[in-house]
Amino acid sequence: MLLKYYSEVPSEIPKLEGTKGVTLRWLISKNDGAKNYAMRLFELAPDGIIPLHDHEKTEHEVFIVEGNGILQTLEKNLEIKKGDAIFIKPGEKHSFQNNSKKPLKFICVIPLSRL
Amino acid sequence: MLLKYYSEVPSEIPKLEGTKGVTLRWLISKNDGAKNYAMRLFELAPDGIIPLHDHEKTEHEVFIVEGNGILQTLEKNLEIKKGDAIFIKPGEKHSFQNNSKKPLKFICVIPLSRL
Repeated sequence: MLLKYYSEVPSEIPKLEGTKGVTLRWLISKNDGAKNYAMRLFELAPDGIIPLHDHEKTEHEVFIVEGNGILQTLEKNLEIKKGDAIFIKPGEKHSFQNNSKKPLKFICVIPLSRL
Repeated sequence: MLLKYYSEVPSEIPKLEGTKGVTLRWLISKNDGAKNYAMRLFELAPDGIIPLHDHEKTEHEVFIVEGNGILQTLEKNLEIKKGDAIFIKPGEKHSFQNNSKKPLKFICVIPLSRL
């Protein structure tokens, strides 16, 4: 059993080119003994952006825990808010943007087997 | 890409005996095309309880999204609050209790392959 407050976990800057105003914390990962999937927390400052990208073999299961923003896909822009659950299938292009004046925070769970 | 607000997903009563004041929503599941893991949202009303139990082969990755409560293990009682991440390994006994006057809500991700 591991219990940690999110801010105890060191934050990283995502490596994806074009990312701005974003931090990432691996809340539960291989280092904790997780074997199947990892839970990360993303924080986007106001005007923060994760640019349009996809992952060939990796899905995302996302839950918005704080704030508002935009989820951009190839087809449209979707407004996202606290309480939204999002399933991004492998290969689906996606971008997250914080167009609000407050932080946007979301959980993003990814499979470990394909990393 | 699937986007849904949590309350659009029908709520269920967990089947575990002794559970009181708890609802469960399968936010992202097999029905959505998820193959590896499922994201659920639990809500415990004040005085709500999920009694002590374990899952032989199934881990939990949990994130508290709202409220406060108690996570009971065989060894001790841990205070839990919004922003806490919890990794419960297979076979570890656990109980969630809402000892506050407001709802306790958490995300709980489980593997699908072993259900």
